[in-house]
Amino acid sequence: MAPIFRTTRRVEFADTDMAGMVHFANFFRYMEAAEVEFWRSRGLSVMMRQQKERMSFPRVSASCDYKKIALFEDLLDIDVTIKRLGNKSVTFGFEISRAGESLATGQITAVCCRVAPNRPLEAIEIPPAIRERLQ
Amino acid sequence: MAPIFRTTRRVEFADTDMAGMVHFANFFRYMEAAEVEFWRSRGLSVMMRQQKERMSFPRVSASCDYKKIALFEDLLDIDVTIKRLGNKSVTFGFEISRAGESLATGQITAVCCRVAPNRPLEAIEIPPAIRERLQ
Amino acid sequence: MAPIFRTTRRVEFADTDMAGMVHFANFFRYMEAAEVEFWRSRGLSVMMRQQKERMSFPRVSASCDYKKIALFEDLLDIDVTIKRLGNKSVTFGFEISRAGESLATGQITAVCCRVAPNRPLEAIEIPPAIRERLQ
Amino acid sequence: MAPIFRTTRRVEFADTDMAGMVHFANFFRYMEAAEVEFWRSRGLSVMMRQQKERMSFPRVSASCDYKKIALFEDLLDIDVTIKRLGNKSVTFGFEISRAGESLATGQITAVCCRVAPNRPLEAIEIPPAIRERLQ
Repeated sequence: MAPIFRTTRRVEFADTDMAGMVHFANFFRYMEAAEVEFWRSRGLSVMMRQQKERMSFPRVSASCDYKKIALFEDLLDIDVTIKRLGNKSVTFGFEISRAGESLATGQITAVCCRVAPNRPLEAIEIPPAIRERLQ
Repeated sequence: MAPIFRTTRRVEFADTDMAGMVHFANFFRYMEAAEVEFWRSRGLSVMMRQQKERMSFPRVSASCDYKKIALFEDLLDIDVTIKRLGNKSVTFGFEISRAGESLATGQITAVCCRVAPNRPLEAIEIPPAIRERLQ
Repeated sequence: MAPIFRTTRRVEFADTDMAGMVHFANFFRYMEAAEVEFWRSRGLSVMMRQQKERMSFPRVSASCDYKKIALFEDLLDIDVTIKRLGNKSVTFGFEISRAGESLATGQITAVCCRVAPNRPLEAIEIPPAIRERLQ
Repeated sequence: MAPIFRTTRRVEFADTDMAGMVHFANFFRYMEAAEVEFWRSRGLSVMMRQQKERMSFPRVSASCDYKKIALFEDLLDIDVTIKRLGNKSVTFGFEISRAGESLATGQITAVCCRVAPNRPLEAIEIPPAIRERLQ
């Protein structure tokens, strides 16, 4: 599937661990940040206000497969794909690479939710205006 | 000044960096977590509800002096002192040690603030009921 | 599968995000920390020295499914299972719950590697002495 | 004092906390990342190899004063100054601002150290070649 968005970031010192590489959990931060940039590139945000309500996309599933390690000061490319756009959820795919060599692939599924104070999150259909801009 | 509270925590793998030690910024997480435990030990929280409002204690200043490094799986003791209890603010002191040897000392100043949706934080006097329990 | 280890931790302020819940990437830190505690409970470590070499268990795969959100100051139980013990790798399963209610389940696969300065990681068979203690 | 370097970064979702703002400890990550970029802009690194030894600049002191909060997706400018260049240590100053408005100021002191396996960190004089490029 063709990536719909690419972003680039440099590995920071605080991202590494005592094994001398990027700590595995930080790849999830990297993927989310790329996703957020993608939303922004479409004029959207993962935290949106619809009239009086807030709408957000909490994650229901996340995974990552690690093939090569990433090191301090590496320049990483992160490609974003939309793997599935459901009624209430969207699944993003990610490929993290360095100079054309794939280091890791991942996936995050987020569900469109209404956020109201003192109420549990409630899954709702992705509004058509948003769905359109995601495609 | 005598500590009013002590807590203990073990260094996690994700807390380390490629230099093989706890990343310096994580000492601030350690200090805050000790402070939060202290609040809880007094029946309080850094995020409180006063009738309809929320009250919180955002940080206006934080510092740390590092003397010895902390390593993965080290068991750290964190002592909390109250260095100054002002009208609207409180300054906590922290000593982080391992088996009686001091590794770092730090300080955090937090200001009592009213938190209301869509309004900037507003500094308020620490309510007497809270002030009493802090002492 | 019956858990072989359980640990407990309290959600820290720094673990939360602006959606008011534990940030999804922190569940991977929680899982890893539980795994590390499990190793330690067996007299082992994820970073070990075998004579002159270091041996470590870098992660090749990690996933998490989120069912309920975790909040600041929640007391979480984390159960660890061994889902598969291969020649060179081990797959841990995790269940994160609060007061008996499951919040998330996850999985991490780690590969036994020789770590030598200036050489790439090399996957090796899990030494029998370690394999025995893991079971 | 005139800044010798400026960098820009956007606040990520994972940088925020449940108070809806950037968690205070993350300002230290921001400052360090700006410092690292400054080193790189001078052809240097905080982790360097000098012939057979590694040389690093562990932090001995860090502080930050917070004036305004930073929010998700804010575009932050970080100015770096050298406040003091000693024989063995260097003190960096930082100003974090948004659209010309100062949000926080901070300071980090790092000491030049020889890093050798199985030996404690040893403070050494900053080599002349490095000192020259820092100025």
